[in-house]
Amino acid sequence: MKFGIILNYDKGDTAELSKRIAEFLIINGMEVFALSEECAVLEGVKELSKSDFNNTIEFLIVVGGDGTFLRGSRQIFGYEIPILGVNMGKLGFLTEVEKDNVFEALKEIIAGRYFLEKRMLLAADVIRDEKIVRSFMALNDFVINKGAFSRLIGISMNIGGEYFRDYSSDGVIIATPTGSTAYSLSAGGPIVYPGMDVSIITPICPHSLSARPMVIPPEKDVEITLCSPRIKSMLTIDGQNGFELENGDRIIIKKSASRLNFVKFSKEGFFGRIRDKF
Amino acid sequence: MKFGIILNYDKGDTAELSKRIAEFLIINGMEVFALSEECAVLEGVKELSKSDFNNTIEFLIVVGGDGTFLRGSRQIFGYEIPILGVNMGKLGFLTEVEKDNVFEALKEIIAGRYFLEKRMLLAADVIRDEKIVRSFMALNDFVINKGAFSRLIGISMNIGGEYFRDYSSDGVIIATPTGSTAYSLSAGGPIVYPGMDVSIITPICPHSLSARPMVIPPEKDVEITLCSPRIKSMLTIDGQNGFELENGDRIIIKKSASRLNFVKFSKEGFFGRIRDKF
Amino acid sequence: MKFGIILNYDKGDTAELSKRIAEFLIINGMEVFALSEECAVLEGVKELSKSDFNNTIEFLIVVGGDGTFLRGSRQIFGYEIPILGVNMGKLGFLTEVEKDNVFEALKEIIAGRYFLEKRMLLAADVIRDEKIVRSFMALNDFVINKGAFSRLIGISMNIGGEYFRDYSSDGVIIATPTGSTAYSLSAGGPIVYPGMDVSIITPICPHSLSARPMVIPPEKDVEITLCSPRIKSMLTIDGQNGFELENGDRIIIKKSASRLNFVKFSKEGFFGRIRDKF
Amino acid sequence: MKFGIILNYDKGDTAELSKRIAEFLIINGMEVFALSEECAVLEGVKELSKSDFNNTIEFLIVVGGDGTFLRGSRQIFGYEIPILGVNMGKLGFLTEVEKDNVFEALKEIIAGRYFLEKRMLLAADVIRDEKIVRSFMALNDFVINKGAFSRLIGISMNIGGEYFRDYSSDGVIIATPTGSTAYSLSAGGPIVYPGMDVSIITPICPHSLSARPMVIPPEKDVEITLCSPRIKSMLTIDGQNGFELENGDRIIIKKSASRLNFVKFSKEGFFGRIRDKF
Repeated sequence: MKFGIILNYDKGDTAELSKRIAEFLIINGMEVFALSEECAVLEGVKELSKSDFNNTIEFLIVVGGDGTFLRGSRQIFGYEIPILGVNMGKLGFLTEVEKDNVFEALKEIIAGRYFLEKRMLLAADVIRDEKIVRSFMALNDFVINKGAFSRLIGISMNIGGEYFRDYSSDGVIIATPTGSTAYSLSAGGPIVYPGMDVSIITPICPHSLSARPMVIPPEKDVEITLCSPRIKSMLTIDGQNGFELENGDRIIIKKSASRLNFVKFSKEGFFGRIRDKF
Repeated sequence: MKFGIILNYDKGDTAELSKRIAEFLIINGMEVFALSEECAVLEGVKELSKSDFNNTIEFLIVVGGDGTFLRGSRQIFGYEIPILGVNMGKLGFLTEVEKDNVFEALKEIIAGRYFLEKRMLLAADVIRDEKIVRSFMALNDFVINKGAFSRLIGISMNIGGEYFRDYSSDGVIIATPTGSTAYSLSAGGPIVYPGMDVSIITPICPHSLSARPMVIPPEKDVEITLCSPRIKSMLTIDGQNGFELENGDRIIIKKSASRLNFVKFSKEGFFGRIRDKF
Repeated sequence: MKFGIILNYDKGDTAELSKRIAEFLIINGMEVFALSEECAVLEGVKELSKSDFNNTIEFLIVVGGDGTFLRGSRQIFGYEIPILGVNMGKLGFLTEVEKDNVFEALKEIIAGRYFLEKRMLLAADVIRDEKIVRSFMALNDFVINKGAFSRLIGISMNIGGEYFRDYSSDGVIIATPTGSTAYSLSAGGPIVYPGMDVSIITPICPHSLSARPMVIPPEKDVEITLCSPRIKSMLTIDGQNGFELENGDRIIIKKSASRLNFVKFSKEGFFGRIRDKF
Repeated sequence: MKFGIILNYDKGDTAELSKRIAEFLIINGMEVFALSEECAVLEGVKELSKSDFNNTIEFLIVVGGDGTFLRGSRQIFGYEIPILGVNMGKLGFLTEVEKDNVFEALKEIIAGRYFLEKRMLLAADVIRDEKIVRSFMALNDFVINKGAFSRLIGISMNIGGEYFRDYSSDGVIIATPTGSTAYSLSAGGPIVYPGMDVSIITPICPHSLSARPMVIPPEKDVEITLCSPRIKSMLTIDGQNGFELENGDRIIIKKSASRLNFVKFSKEGFFGRIRDKF
């Protein structure tokens, strides 16, 4: 089996453990690949370009925290590659295995004793002058928000082709269930069980007290039109990438056709994480 | 076709309109039935006992506000009878037709030009000394809450067989998407699109700041155990019926096998109601 | 100096420590008094009736948690008696001393090395048929809320003689800064620094999304009129006493002329408690 | 008496009304002054530089919405000049007079029939490398927040010299009672009666669910230290001016020694505005 490794290569202990993971896999007869930045801190792994990476690997191991997992998952969006997160930091929601249990977990994986939880992804198109100028996918959330200098942005929202309402706010979050425990929760959104197929729309500091978090079927397009002539605003994807928006841009967000294959060893665990984390 | 009518018979204008609805249906060759209280204010309709009512009628019309609709819907839980709400009051979420449009709507119904939105219902069992002592169904919500004299109740919650957490709070709401715009919203829960199949767990004034509204798959049993020796508490069903709970009672709530058949004339309308109501 | 002791006499360790406190005070030449229930578990202290108690003692020691402190403080409302809480349970906001430090604290008190933080109290009059039928004082809060069977109560609110608004809600809390970290916080109210003179009005699960917590000068009368013909409701004082309200009752709440004298050994500590508790 | 006029000179109707206000004052024997931008749209008024303006005028009239009022008030911070807002737009909290009543109001002012509500102001010092690099005053609020690209900023907060806690959040608002109905309210803060002397600390989308709005005595310094090495952040003053912060900057905020003199014609009105606005 062909494994890929992605890691938070800034951190010494993460690089150290990743090296040992690669060795363990190679000793057990697996091939191991990495991108160029990662290769620098690993040994015995083969270097691949970004475009070859997801066409080659059959299983992805991400070593780090939730941020690293988000970055790693972006490499394989659209590919049906299982992904396992190894947690190096505080309690996370995306990483399945703690660093102390990683070699046990690897044995289970090599033996095929795991299952896949297929998590929903969101897809966004940015439309400018009636053309799609950029498309993105997200595991956690798309965030449309104002620039640093604090003023409200105005947006107009349609859902499933039906006009919903105008918002004046710092911005709005469209999250997956996986993202419900991230930024959406800080902005007042509900916790949503990760296996579900729903979208969560959470306004950020809305001017109107009646603008409340909302849970909708993810098949319904959320269409957001920016209407703030002089305010700079930004589309942020999984808190990782930013795309500068212009007044009049329309952003259309709906469920992606593809999913992310989380490697799991137990059906349980979500409610315990919620309890322990908060 | 055999119609049943349920109405808010305390109000003069509701009785008056209900009379005219019954006349219209009879003139158009329909049979019309009512329960004894309702018969007193209608003319030409046939009286039925509660048990015969839902076995006889093929279509239920409820005239009043959301409260009357909840009461009416309880008559037909478990029967696949279409239900139409005629709104007599302020903007409601359950009633489909405003009083001024009722005769147009009746013509559409007689002509078969409508569709059914099958709304999820919740079922609850109250277990005492290892026996089910009562079972209930709800369209909006089950509420477990403390008595009037203000003290916290303690509950312990399992979800889908997994231990979740203990709460100290005024109580907890388990709501359907239909009920998400009712009491759950007042307690901080999200607005949920009504066609979906999810359960919403909303704590009421929780002592712990980390207890947040949660959206879960409705197939997962929510099991609540009361652990407040000296505090009286109550299970309320759709804000209509109350059942006194005892310490140690377990309440198990999950999706009901049956649904409520809302009569609809348009796929749209939910987001407009949210906008207009709040 | 004449000390009074009030304790949570249901708990063995509290009774045990209280006995040792009484002994310590007597050995140091103090007189110690208690009410009849407390006398049963103490030794060598003199029994006093409720009415003699607050006329006799010059310093009150309360042993237990925040609930016991609230009960104890009610004995001396209107008297300028210093009060010290000794905490027997989880982190509290009202008790100044942990059980392990109590004898050190007593030495400081005997030596006069402490200061008084004069906390604001609220006073309420219940007016029925234009007469005051009952008056109450509170250290934490007055709560007007609905009975167990879950329906909204309607209230109309005037502040400082100016009409404010009508509420439909589970109820409303009028809290002091001292009470801001208790029930008001659970209902969404702000944390207020305890030394301040403000009243906090916090609606409980309001039907209207625009009803928000409010901070006002405590000299402004908050006048609440109940307008829910068939709903039972209750006035609760510090979560300790309940008084059944009738439709049409007016409750007038404002700052009391008297204060409660908290014994303190340090000006600091509030922000640390907030950090540790939540 | 020497009047100054400041207006939202982008809007035609505002310029038109301002012209008529100036004429009315001149006809009634008053002197009227304006800054250069404003002079362009007025007639018969005398132009002053910014520095002469607040040393010359004895009364300031601001014509526009709450944004214009905030801009106007900044001209006279530190001077004991009465300020009257004339509202040209939607319901505002800062403007006392609606455009239709402005000439009546001017007659009252000329006759001296008004009183002053002395509103609290906040002062902030930004400290870098142990030196004050900038100082600001605010009528509504100081906001410390992250840049557009969405990541948390870390801050450490001391209050009154006592360590309070660390926050990870989008930012934090320190508001006056006047500002409590502006951005702080959108972020979940309480409504505070405008005449009071309190500071409100409201976290913006805090990562920790336990970070809650807080009301403190304004004499207590709020000291915020930025600890986010690679995140850009910004101090915004009354939503009008921005100042770029650097990692390690300390911002110290407390009550200003000076106040703003709101011209009022009635002691009442605040609760009605709250009711009408939300």
